[in-house]
Amino acid sequence: MTNECFASLEDYRSLARTRLPAAVFDYVDCGACDEVSTRRNRSDFDDLALRPLVLRNVSEPCLAAQVLGWQFPQPLGIAPMAFHRLVHSDGEIATARAANRLNLPMIVSCMSSIPIEDIAAESPHTHLWLQTYIFKNKDVTRELVRRAEEAGYEAIVLTTGCPAPGKRDKNIRNAFALPEGVHAANFQPRNVVVHNNPIHSVEGADLDPSATWRDVEWLRRQTQLPILLKGIMNPNDALQALSLDVSGIIVSNHGGRQLDTTESTICALPDIAAAVGGRLPLLIDSGFRRGTDILKAIALGADTVLVGRPVLWALALGGESGVVAALKLLGDEFRLAMQLAGCDSLSAIRRAASDILRSRAMLRK
Amino acid sequence: MTNECFASLEDYRSLARTRLPAAVFDYVDCGACDEVSTRRNRSDFDDLALRPLVLRNVSEPCLAAQVLGWQFPQPLGIAPMAFHRLVHSDGEIATARAANRLNLPMIVSCMSSIPIEDIAAESPHTHLWLQTYIFKNKDVTRELVRRAEEAGYEAIVLTTGCPAPGKRDKNIRNAFALPEGVHAANFQPRNVVVHNNPIHSVEGADLDPSATWRDVEWLRRQTQLPILLKGIMNPNDALQALSLDVSGIIVSNHGGRQLDTTESTICALPDIAAAVGGRLPLLIDSGFRRGTDILKAIALGADTVLVGRPVLWALALGGESGVVAALKLLGDEFRLAMQLAGCDSLSAIRRAASDILRSRAMLRK
Amino acid sequence: MTNECFASLEDYRSLARTRLPAAVFDYVDCGACDEVSTRRNRSDFDDLALRPLVLRNVSEPCLAAQVLGWQFPQPLGIAPMAFHRLVHSDGEIATARAANRLNLPMIVSCMSSIPIEDIAAESPHTHLWLQTYIFKNKDVTRELVRRAEEAGYEAIVLTTGCPAPGKRDKNIRNAFALPEGVHAANFQPRNVVVHNNPIHSVEGADLDPSATWRDVEWLRRQTQLPILLKGIMNPNDALQALSLDVSGIIVSNHGGRQLDTTESTICALPDIAAAVGGRLPLLIDSGFRRGTDILKAIALGADTVLVGRPVLWALALGGESGVVAALKLLGDEFRLAMQLAGCDSLSAIRRAASDILRSRAMLRK
Amino acid sequence: MTNECFASLEDYRSLARTRLPAAVFDYVDCGACDEVSTRRNRSDFDDLALRPLVLRNVSEPCLAAQVLGWQFPQPLGIAPMAFHRLVHSDGEIATARAANRLNLPMIVSCMSSIPIEDIAAESPHTHLWLQTYIFKNKDVTRELVRRAEEAGYEAIVLTTGCPAPGKRDKNIRNAFALPEGVHAANFQPRNVVVHNNPIHSVEGADLDPSATWRDVEWLRRQTQLPILLKGIMNPNDALQALSLDVSGIIVSNHGGRQLDTTESTICALPDIAAAVGGRLPLLIDSGFRRGTDILKAIALGADTVLVGRPVLWALALGGESGVVAALKLLGDEFRLAMQLAGCDSLSAIRRAASDILRSRAMLRK
Repeated sequence: MTNECFASLEDYRSLARTRLPAAVFDYVDCGACDEVSTRRNRSDFDDLALRPLVLRNVSEPCLAAQVLGWQFPQPLGIAPMAFHRLVHSDGEIATARAANRLNLPMIVSCMSSIPIEDIAAESPHTHLWLQTYIFKNKDVTRELVRRAEEAGYEAIVLTTGCPAPGKRDKNIRNAFALPEGVHAANFQPRNVVVHNNPIHSVEGADLDPSATWRDVEWLRRQTQLPILLKGIMNPNDALQALSLDVSGIIVSNHGGRQLDTTESTICALPDIAAAVGGRLPLLIDSGFRRGTDILKAIALGADTVLVGRPVLWALALGGESGVVAALKLLGDEFRLAMQLAGCDSLSAIRRAASDILRSRAMLRK
Repeated sequence: MTNECFASLEDYRSLARTRLPAAVFDYVDCGACDEVSTRRNRSDFDDLALRPLVLRNVSEPCLAAQVLGWQFPQPLGIAPMAFHRLVHSDGEIATARAANRLNLPMIVSCMSSIPIEDIAAESPHTHLWLQTYIFKNKDVTRELVRRAEEAGYEAIVLTTGCPAPGKRDKNIRNAFALPEGVHAANFQPRNVVVHNNPIHSVEGADLDPSATWRDVEWLRRQTQLPILLKGIMNPNDALQALSLDVSGIIVSNHGGRQLDTTESTICALPDIAAAVGGRLPLLIDSGFRRGTDILKAIALGADTVLVGRPVLWALALGGESGVVAALKLLGDEFRLAMQLAGCDSLSAIRRAASDILRSRAMLRK
Repeated sequence: MTNECFASLEDYRSLARTRLPAAVFDYVDCGACDEVSTRRNRSDFDDLALRPLVLRNVSEPCLAAQVLGWQFPQPLGIAPMAFHRLVHSDGEIATARAANRLNLPMIVSCMSSIPIEDIAAESPHTHLWLQTYIFKNKDVTRELVRRAEEAGYEAIVLTTGCPAPGKRDKNIRNAFALPEGVHAANFQPRNVVVHNNPIHSVEGADLDPSATWRDVEWLRRQTQLPILLKGIMNPNDALQALSLDVSGIIVSNHGGRQLDTTESTICALPDIAAAVGGRLPLLIDSGFRRGTDILKAIALGADTVLVGRPVLWALALGGESGVVAALKLLGDEFRLAMQLAGCDSLSAIRRAASDILRSRAMLRK
Repeated sequence: MTNECFASLEDYRSLARTRLPAAVFDYVDCGACDEVSTRRNRSDFDDLALRPLVLRNVSEPCLAAQVLGWQFPQPLGIAPMAFHRLVHSDGEIATARAANRLNLPMIVSCMSSIPIEDIAAESPHTHLWLQTYIFKNKDVTRELVRRAEEAGYEAIVLTTGCPAPGKRDKNIRNAFALPEGVHAANFQPRNVVVHNNPIHSVEGADLDPSATWRDVEWLRRQTQLPILLKGIMNPNDALQALSLDVSGIIVSNHGGRQLDTTESTICALPDIAAAVGGRLPLLIDSGFRRGTDILKAIALGADTVLVGRPVLWALALGGESGVVAALKLLGDEFRLAMQLAGCDSLSAIRRAASDILRSRAMLRK
């Protein structure tokens, strides 16, 4: 597998579709219910048309992004996804090593298929952040955070907007279950087979539907690590986050895998950015596949973009080096998009935003 | 047939399509003429995007709905449909028993394929409401209402907007006629075979095209039962209804089976809700298939949602328990949608409506 | 061929497509260039959504339309089309007799395949109007008008917007030419075969690209018959027409067969109606296939609707009685649409227009 | 190959697709990345609907266009494209001769597959303009300009918006490389095979990503020839151009081959025209295929339209006479569009613009 075979991240998807068992491909690929949100996450990018600026010196575009005090070479990171070993036996370790080679952060899901300590031990220099939930049994959350601290994780990403597992029609139709040898390595397996959402098959991993903003305050007291809130789609919630001691927001509809028919994240971003007014870092995920997608998110106020499914496609096809190649491809596209749009830094993109972005429908008031 | 096979109501449709005779499936499925209204009833839900709220305590969402003084466990009921025995030999009795098992109301069509008395006798605890028309011969209407009262029906649903039978192109092309053994059990059969709309084949069931609001007053005088007006699509008509002594309005374009190219009901709802201003209960039907559809209707002012065709698909596939499973699936989806949107009651949905609903085209003025 | 086989005018098209030679079907069916106007003529009707009114007495809807002092039982007529004998050997005579049986007007094209005198002689009671052009040789126009007067034609329809023959890509690709036995019967045939537009093959029928409003004045002086201007799409031209002594306007883009990418006629109608302000009768054609289409045109200010292609499809399939059946089907649909929308006369439609019509995009300012 | 076989430029594309090697066809046809810009360049024309004016004297429409002091019989020219010999062995010489036969200007790409001197020598009467870039090695640019001056080229077209080669996914998937015998004839070939963009395979032709408006001033000092700036999509850049001594602007997104998801050029044109206010000639390219496309561009402020890909399709199919036929076809369509819209000159189109153009979405503010 060489990089030259792949013209785009979508090419990774096409090939992964032929290589993975159908039910596994669907598990990674699908959205909730009718997948309206998942499709909208992609199609809304096309509503935003670019008016490039020309004859700007773009010989050395600076793609560097500051997040939580670190500087990364690009405004890119790996979104949290469960069970990397579903697609490649090296699992999260390969992904983490790929992140390290590119010096990009990786958010490890608490539903990882390799214990979080092993990931950290096998890829000690990666910027690892741990994603977790507020579980019914708060000890589970507290213990995960403690383990993350000990293993050297640098931040905690608290997923919100998941008081219950999303409904994935394709998993139900496929009667999807985790294959032998893949399980939630940070938990004990439960002795039941439940379709739809594999989180059901994890002992102790019951999501707490009564979780509220007070639980964020509780989490804040459990750790000194920075806390990012993932799953914010509403400006009211962004304002709420501002009043707490959190370190950042991830605008996300979880790739359209939780509530169907939500807005796309790129459409939700501008109002959230306006509410936050630069007082908190804004990360965003869900549907990013092209360099111009990243450009548009930066223009509308995001600080960094997270990529999910393409990482698993690339992992399936080429393990660690597959992930490196895919992220490099996306980064190269972003670099080229900046040059062709006439912007030589993230702040240049933001300054030019109102000049270079035109929305036909989505942003019209 | 177990519930697990079906991920969505649409799955019931897909399987029913393979099991029912084509002309019967089409009779249930089709809309009038080019089916523009029928398609729009579905597609307009996608115009409404959700902005979920997070970290609200949604551990025990209360789905209870008050309608006409009764409380139902969910804002759900069964819309009136003719000839349930077309799809299952148990007909309306199975449907009524399913409604009873879930404690949801069922509106029995006066074109039922089992006499309304038998339905009530075989399922005595179901909340049964009788749907009727203003017939040319008012005695027919009066007699139906009297029989309903005696049989213990709790409300009368008067269908408006049907001064003449709708045109169903597919029925015409299929030369559809009621099969042997299925007839309008509350009427004497007419000795003619007429295609397009089976109501033509019922003796005495001639719709009165001269019916007006005065006939609602007439009906009001015939019974002490609450009267609901079904088929209101225009705010002017909603205002008219307010001036009469009726107990509720059902926003409906009859599943797109009467006038083609009407607005969808979800699109018509906001102006009607504004006109009514909470002074009358608002029910709505036509095109509801997903939990998020119900959430959107509640947010825009509906008190309860009625479901039609999916009940017949489920009845075709599994009789009484099929209907229970299908309605349970929809109810579970609605419960999950509330949780994922951050709302723990119908009134919470209404209070959050302007925050969580975004329309791209339909509601823009 | 009985009426019962056909649920809609589109059904006539589907069957005609299988019966006619492909090049003849295409000649009748096609629009100019990419057929954008032709498709838009249909799709724009769907942009207009109806909000029906209920419980109006619609037992005896009056469909009667006044045009040029005559009263017709419905606001319907037959649009001018060339060469009816292309699809049926009885040609325009059958069409005229069908019009007579329904007491609807027929506009005979000067490119008729039967001499206009023969049409009038064989169907003496039909309301026949003659369509003509301003030809390069004005004597040709003058002579046609004189012949029409003598043959008892009641009005002259002057086609505007055709200073040159439209480009029909399908005719070019099909190398379409009039088959043996079909020719412009009011003219001498030219000894050349020209594709694209058969008008090229008619001796003396050269359209005058220098024709102006002064030529309308000239035509006005040639005859006492009422003159209708066909092809008006612009409110400025409607105002111009008001200043001349013409008797009506036909809003038309010629079925999308002249300039491609024009507005649909239903979209152009409101501004023209506003400009005319009721001072001239407004007829409209291009794309009318359903009863609701007619309802919408009346609501937006049209007095009568003309139907073109469907008449030729029905003529192809059933001759005179085919045309009767097709027009009756459309008239019945219009009658039903009025009833279902709650309107019992054309003026009731107009009064209710702002209540019952909603545009999602087209009419938004 | 006779003109009669081709009803439209799209017909040339269809046939060329069957005649050219797939990778060559794709090289000519493709856009960057997902080809959103390329498709939008076409579809946005359909957003603009025409309201034709009738009964204007259009017997002798004057299509003449003034550009840079020359008068051309139509507002048409040939856009710069690399490597004409990819599709026909006569290459740019055939194209230039075709341009000469129609007295239309041709912009020769500096990436021509025949030396610019040979093109000029073999077609001495063609209005030839040389397209070039600011190369990293400015001597390369200077030398090209000097050679163009000596060979009698009349203008220099400086491409902007290409600080780096665009990404063409199809070329990458096809592993496209210039075939034996085709090379950048004005340069020395480089001894490497690089896919994606053949410009990579040209020695010395490294685009300068640091080029700025100052380099336009530098170019201005190198030559007395008029300089046109190609690739302007932003009104801010148009204003910038006004402040320099350039002779015209070409609104272009390079056929959608550089930055993907840009606006279409027809959508970008109005704001640029407003910014320029008639102070500089405006040319436009990217997606022009129909006479009505040209009409719309003129109405929105363009002075002349350039055509690209269709020239190569026609060249592939018929060499010099193929190009003549294709451009004649387009010119004839434009002439007919003017007549059918009621405009007899370019200035008449502009005066009537607000009357005859309606935008449904694109131009709405």
